[in-house]
Amino acid sequence: MTTERPSVLQPEMPPTRWGDPAHAAGLPDGVRDLVGLVFPIQDAPALTDVAVPAPRLADDQVSGLRAIVGDDHVVTDDAVRRQRTRGKSTPDLLRQRSGDLGDAPDVVVRPASHDEVVAVLAYAQEQRIAVVPFGGGTAVTGGLVADPAGLTGVLSLDLGRMRGLLALDPVSSTATLEPGLRGPEAEALLAEHGMMLGHFPQSFEYASIGGFAATRSSGQSSAGYGRFDAMVVGLRVATPVGEVRLGSAPANACGPDLRELFLGSEGAFGVITEVTVRVRPLPEAKEYEGWRWSSFADGADAMRALAQSDLLPTVIRLSDENETAINLADPSGIGGEDRADKEGPGCLMIVGYEGAPAAVAAKRAAVTEALTALGGTALGAEPGEAWASGRFHAPYLRDSLLDVGVLVETLETATFWSNRDSLYQRVKAALTEALGDGTMVLCHISHVYPTGCSLYFTVAAPGGDDPLARWLPAKAAACEAIVASGAAITHHHAVGTDHRPYLTAEIGEVGAEVLRAVKRAVDPAGILNPGVLIP
Amino acid sequence: MTTERPSVLQPEMPPTRWGDPAHAAGLPDGVRDLVGLVFPIQDAPALTDVAVPAPRLADDQVSGLRAIVGDDHVVTDDAVRRQRTRGKSTPDLLRQRSGDLGDAPDVVVRPASHDEVVAVLAYAQEQRIAVVPFGGGTAVTGGLVADPAGLTGVLSLDLGRMRGLLALDPVSSTATLEPGLRGPEAEALLAEHGMMLGHFPQSFEYASIGGFAATRSSGQSSAGYGRFDAMVVGLRVATPVGEVRLGSAPANACGPDLRELFLGSEGAFGVITEVTVRVRPLPEAKEYEGWRWSSFADGADAMRALAQSDLLPTVIRLSDENETAINLADPSGIGGEDRADKEGPGCLMIVGYEGAPAAVAAKRAAVTEALTALGGTALGAEPGEAWASGRFHAPYLRDSLLDVGVLVETLETATFWSNRDSLYQRVKAALTEALGDGTMVLCHISHVYPTGCSLYFTVAAPGGDDPLARWLPAKAAACEAIVASGAAITHHHAVGTDHRPYLTAEIGEVGAEVLRAVKRAVDPAGILNPGVLIP
Repeated sequence: MTTERPSVLQPEMPPTRWGDPAHAAGLPDGVRDLVGLVFPIQDAPALTDVAVPAPRLADDQVSGLRAIVGDDHVVTDDAVRRQRTRGKSTPDLLRQRSGDLGDAPDVVVRPASHDEVVAVLAYAQEQRIAVVPFGGGTAVTGGLVADPAGLTGVLSLDLGRMRGLLALDPVSSTATLEPGLRGPEAEALLAEHGMMLGHFPQSFEYASIGGFAATRSSGQSSAGYGRFDAMVVGLRVATPVGEVRLGSAPANACGPDLRELFLGSEGAFGVITEVTVRVRPLPEAKEYEGWRWSSFADGADAMRALAQSDLLPTVIRLSDENETAINLADPSGIGGEDRADKEGPGCLMIVGYEGAPAAVAAKRAAVTEALTALGGTALGAEPGEAWASGRFHAPYLRDSLLDVGVLVETLETATFWSNRDSLYQRVKAALTEALGDGTMVLCHISHVYPTGCSLYFTVAAPGGDDPLARWLPAKAAACEAIVASGAAITHHHAVGTDHRPYLTAEIGEVGAEVLRAVKRAVDPAGILNPGVLIP
Repeated sequence: MTTERPSVLQPEMPPTRWGDPAHAAGLPDGVRDLVGLVFPIQDAPALTDVAVPAPRLADDQVSGLRAIVGDDHVVTDDAVRRQRTRGKSTPDLLRQRSGDLGDAPDVVVRPASHDEVVAVLAYAQEQRIAVVPFGGGTAVTGGLVADPAGLTGVLSLDLGRMRGLLALDPVSSTATLEPGLRGPEAEALLAEHGMMLGHFPQSFEYASIGGFAATRSSGQSSAGYGRFDAMVVGLRVATPVGEVRLGSAPANACGPDLRELFLGSEGAFGVITEVTVRVRPLPEAKEYEGWRWSSFADGADAMRALAQSDLLPTVIRLSDENETAINLADPSGIGGEDRADKEGPGCLMIVGYEGAPAAVAAKRAAVTEALTALGGTALGAEPGEAWASGRFHAPYLRDSLLDVGVLVETLETATFWSNRDSLYQRVKAALTEALGDGTMVLCHISHVYPTGCSLYFTVAAPGGDDPLARWLPAKAAACEAIVASGAAITHHHAVGTDHRPYLTAEIGEVGAEVLRAVKRAVDPAGILNPGVLIP
């Protein structure tokens, strides 16, 4: 087939906020008043366009890059450099809001093909220019903040021109996608063929196929469709020492599975230029519903029972008591006021089914029977529909809260089931202690496995005069609690620069040396996303 | 818990045959006559105990090893060295039958613990002794044939004393197993707790937990329980440069998943000393049945439809026309003689369901409906039971056929569905052409994925005067056909030394250099299974 390209492209995100500027809005008055009951309202200063630092690259370096990808695709404008600065973590946004654009790339280069990526890498290696692959720009762990020490500058390798559906194999049910496709663009291309990928992380609207692969992303439908890395059957990667093509079969015994070495490599081992994924027929039926559990522990035990029976719906997520209360604003709304009086507010679980109608009906019947037997109360479709319609909105709300001086950030981890409660308590305590009075810690479980689950925390606290200075020690305390609990330092947000200090605790000194050895082999000049991932 | 150990240990296999010597038997007269209709019967010479080469290690090296693991656990007896020579491929058996024990290890060392493994590796590194980890000895691709060039000798690191269940976490449904446990021993230990692993490759009765992990094994119930690497959630590995412990959670985004680098590392990156796996409740119900398809292609399409609908039973395997005919001896037995006359012999599919009775009933109903709609004919339980009762017997039959001069070997590959038929035809043609008149090539599909499947070939041909000399070029021709087809050089038999020449075609030059870089990092002296895996 000839390459198919999306007819509608996602808009650019501004450097200081999430998403489409047209969708940004202040807090409605009623919500603002509610927030004001909990946190001091403190309007943030109006944002200004701060100057980015002067580019470090020499003119002949810029010319050299132009010779590879064409004049139009080597950009040194401040506006574009600003847009390619850092990602979308709260620290990133706070730095940008405060006028700190110190991590701006010196130049933005937009290759159109694998071969152009190869040529840019060769030139960057020769010129000792750091290369930061840029997909959707949604990184939340500092993955776009390369350290140019010892190099001549930083090149943001913007993959936005590589947004094609390169191949579709309907017999094998696979599609080969270019890395710059944003989530909705990839889904739109596949939908023209009646297919879908089914990867819906909260960053879905802006994050890219290459980023999903490079960070081992996991989406909201992971119970049914799996993590992104589990969808990948093939990869093409450009490295400074040559090309890597992997994936001769769905699975094999050809030694270590090197796909799993480039998945999660966060731009440090190469630039992913093609991703071949399993695709599925578009679901004819989609049903989302709510369930009430008397406690977070009871709901978690029910998730565990389903996962261990291999009886998972497409979506399953459970909010703890705090998150349930905040999301509903009226906790007594779950399961009726009487019940809330007697048993506490309870916890909301969202359960979603997608697929062919008969399969959805069968799965739903089996899951309903199991959840009922485990003590859950079915709440009907309304909470499910509410979740589905708002599933990608949280980052906009964060911007609105940052606007009124409330510090909001998320972090996540994963562990085995027997360690779930201990991990939950320890991270919560670490955050509460670090941020002090008035801190709210919410948590949900959104990814489950037969042997364990993720825990996703949302923290809100008064921002004070310097919210960044308040957050960084709290994040460190949470990371230390995670490491002390023996849990994963990240379940789906990746390592970046923020988690790099904790990676050796995760993989050990020998594991760290293995990563360094691979890095030396594929990137001898150390130009690929320096400072990211590798301990 | 304290370490639990199996009460019954699997017996040792003889160096020239598979399995328990008590189970070995010549061909029954009727079968011998049948075989004689197809192949020239040519009784192989009586086996004799051939002398093994003189050990190369110096006495003080043997003493050094004794100081680590104790006098009783450093063995230089010819009988034991013979038992630890090579694996169980047909070339291995033919070499041993012909008296070639040139690959015998110089010494067999039996550590009792991770710490003893660490100490042995340190000593071996200092003394430049090659270390070949030995689990069950069932390797079929030369994984136990280290090349001692540049080293002082070869040490077989026999993990047979490390046969413990170290931990069981019933909440997380995980078990931590030592590497020397054979399949039935591990299952017996878990069964005492009502649990099972569910990994049943044909080598199940003798293969070891460490070997399953080191070779990315896949078992006959992979449709329901997954490949072995998919069951692993944690690993402990001893390397010459230190210990590696991996697995803080079922899945994570902590960079590349290094578990996947040590899974499939075939002893070349370290010695796996602990494996933590997902376990499951013992199934209350087990049902196996047969289905008839008019052709291999129709049956394969049905498997594909099930896999792509995420509607797989626990076991699903499909024999091609040749394998169906041979296995049944009477092809008209499938689906009735009338049907065979009209439509040809057809192909037999085995479908198995295991689990809780209600889940088995529900899955069976859904699969039955799907297979019927796809054109399959249900044959009832008898073919399923026959398969289940004979599922581990094929290697004994191979011995009996080798005894009467028939060359028999297997090989396997995997590919995406759209390439299945082309791969099948090319490998079959390559084998038939290489081995000439009277060659029978049988094939089955026993591992399926949404995007593709494995192909497992059994070849039988007249052995002639030098069956090894006949087989090696045929194997090379099959490997070249696989590589030319873009398929995986092995789906579950691993790389070893036999597939090493083809690995670079699989992973590319950069992939090969990545493996070499990791090897240098974890095994700077090159003592770990030298000559195996690494291109």
